[in-house]
Amino acid sequence: VKALIVHAHPEPTSFNARLLDTAVTTLTEAGHEVQVSDLYAMRWDPVASGADFLERRFPDQLQYDREQKTAVAQRTFRADVAEEIEKVVWCDLLVLQFPLWWYSVPAIMKGWFDRVFVNGLMYGALGRFDQGGMAGRRAMVSTTTGAFPGMVGERGVMGHLDAILWHLEYGTLAYSGFTVLERFVGNAVRYVDDETREGYLPAYADHLRRLEELPVMPTHANAEFGPDFALLPDVEPRTLGHSWSRPR
Amino acid sequence: VKALIVHAHPEPTSFNARLLDTAVTTLTEAGHEVQVSDLYAMRWDPVASGADFLERRFPDQLQYDREQKTAVAQRTFRADVAEEIEKVVWCDLLVLQFPLWWYSVPAIMKGWFDRVFVNGLMYGALGRFDQGGMAGRRAMVSTTTGAFPGMVGERGVMGHLDAILWHLEYGTLAYSGFTVLERFVGNAVRYVDDETREGYLPAYADHLRRLEELPVMPTHANAEFGPDFALLPDVEPRTLGHSWSRPR
Repeated sequence: VKALIVHAHPEPTSFNARLLDTAVTTLTEAGHEVQVSDLYAMRWDPVASGADFLERRFPDQLQYDREQKTAVAQRTFRADVAEEIEKVVWCDLLVLQFPLWWYSVPAIMKGWFDRVFVNGLMYGALGRFDQGGMAGRRAMVSTTTGAFPGMVGERGVMGHLDAILWHLEYGTLAYSGFTVLERFVGNAVRYVDDETREGYLPAYADHLRRLEELPVMPTHANAEFGPDFALLPDVEPRTLGHSWSRPR
Repeated sequence: VKALIVHAHPEPTSFNARLLDTAVTTLTEAGHEVQVSDLYAMRWDPVASGADFLERRFPDQLQYDREQKTAVAQRTFRADVAEEIEKVVWCDLLVLQFPLWWYSVPAIMKGWFDRVFVNGLMYGALGRFDQGGMAGRRAMVSTTTGAFPGMVGERGVMGHLDAILWHLEYGTLAYSGFTVLERFVGNAVRYVDDETREGYLPAYADHLRRLEELPVMPTHANAEFGPDFALLPDVEPRTLGHSWSRPR
């Protein structure tokens, strides 16, 4: 496996950094190749702008996703974006390491997706989900929370973690074609006792060693939707976003 | 009403900018006070770091949320953060204007929440949801998508928009105590005909004029949860994140 780990934490001695180290060691020992994008260390710029393109097809008005498509064809991305795109295309396993901030990734990682997951390569005319550009590759979230497990479980006060991460796991990773593996979560890292927290590291190593057996996030294939873009009537919804209807 | 509109789009002539103008005009004409934070125009820095604090309580290892708490008490935020905090505290209506990128806000706006929604003021020991720091204030999303309505409706291919925006509307706005008003959505802005797109502007103005009648996002009060952090057995879940359980 060629693994790309994208890491976002401002503190080099954080527990997230130790989870990152655990992943690098575990995957390397298992014979996999590993690259790391440590976004804070790289001083990654998360702000998508016209400056991301060495040439502009539409210089008068920025249409970001259309410029991406042109830049894919003409290889005219700014160097920092081009390098990250190359790493994603290289990998067959993408791992995201981050602390959960406001039910999502830190802004520096959101901007990695905004700038690197480009139209014409990860998504676009080629399709999405099972027809996404990254189809056949796998992705996995590894995150830490300030919540106890009951808070992010079924009927938990924060809502289910499947809901919290829907925009990322389904809307970004699965959307681009990745098969999404069961996440690893270190809950309440600030509040558990030292023994529990230290125990997360071997638990994460085990998780990564079981890569081939990890459950996969259910999705729907494009063929299951009708011309009105809705799930065909005889298809039972398998995902959170397809199951929900507002109480009347 | 004192309205703060936070706007995130890299192109000053975008349709999002026209929605922003519509909101400023409509709210002003209705007699409300309006402030705007145009994040791209301000060159807002979305990357949370130790540099956000003029003094550090724990200089050896950055614990971002703990430093926030200290900085609230001692008024030691960097000027750009302090100014935005002041605007949020000033407002009683927060409006977010952005294009939907990867089922979420552009990174520049995610980093506005990371840095401005601080521990000890918007959330923290004081509580969350009905006990959140912003309780009694209202918030509303105004967004544009590249999707047709059926794609983001019930059983739609992208999943329900309530799922897509859960991390923002529930996990950020409601979490901090805001009452979340029904969102305004301009779907498929790139793909609809000119007449339909132009029609979004008066529709948005109408939406804003009906502020007092807009439906409110259902939430659960803290009192509805037990000591295990789960909804009490006799409470019927009202939200997406409390309704979901994984298919077995």
